[in-house]
Amino acid sequence: MVTRTARERQLDHPGRGEIALADVLHALADPVRLRVVRTMAAADSPMACGAFGLPVSKSTCTHHFRVLREAGIIRQHYRGTAVLNDLRRDDLDARFPGLLDCVLAAAAGDSPAQ
Amino acid sequence: MVTRTARERQLDHPGRGEIALADVLHALADPVRLRVVRTMAAADSPMACGAFGLPVSKSTCTHHFRVLREAGIIRQHYRGTAVLNDLRRDDLDARFPGLLDCVLAAAAGDSPAQ
Repeated sequence: MVTRTARERQLDHPGRGEIALADVLHALADPVRLRVVRTMAAADSPMACGAFGLPVSKSTCTHHFRVLREAGIIRQHYRGTAVLNDLRRDDLDARFPGLLDCVLAAAAGDSPAQ
Repeated sequence: MVTRTARERQLDHPGRGEIALADVLHALADPVRLRVVRTMAAADSPMACGAFGLPVSKSTCTHHFRVLREAGIIRQHYRGTAVLNDLRRDDLDARFPGLLDCVLAAAAGDSPAQ
């Protein structure tokens, strides 16, 4: 039986320069994912997936977080058996200056914060 | 045989207040549609669908323009048998201030203008 090391359990993330606009916009176009990003932007520490109180099944939740990670919007890492999520604000601001703030402002104007 | 009047041939558009962020982001997340929007932003007059030189079939082209229209990003109107397209910049800027410019700037940084 093979014991997984912490390294093997790391999840794939695009590098800053690999973050693609189409992927970011696609990820943010979903209301559930946009809600996750708004919540993370308002938080100041990593959050477990279960902490967002999303009205979707666990598998759908996992899917949404994977889309956000693969788009380069969040960073996911294991802490024990839990997956913690961090907004990649610095990377996004460097790659597409102002874009995240514009979308967050638009979302705030579009509907009340969750 | 019924002759269509100009009124009957008008296409549906969301009102300014009906433009939804999720629809706008979804519409802009497609590279072909984003290219259309960038071209229209650089133009100063309405453009026929065929003027964009898109590398897709006519039916796919029609689909893309419909998605943009239904999202509230462009306005389409008939001139004779041709459909002309206009960017709804004023409506977008009023609904989501700064968003279109942020996306256009991000697109310009992401890849060379077409």
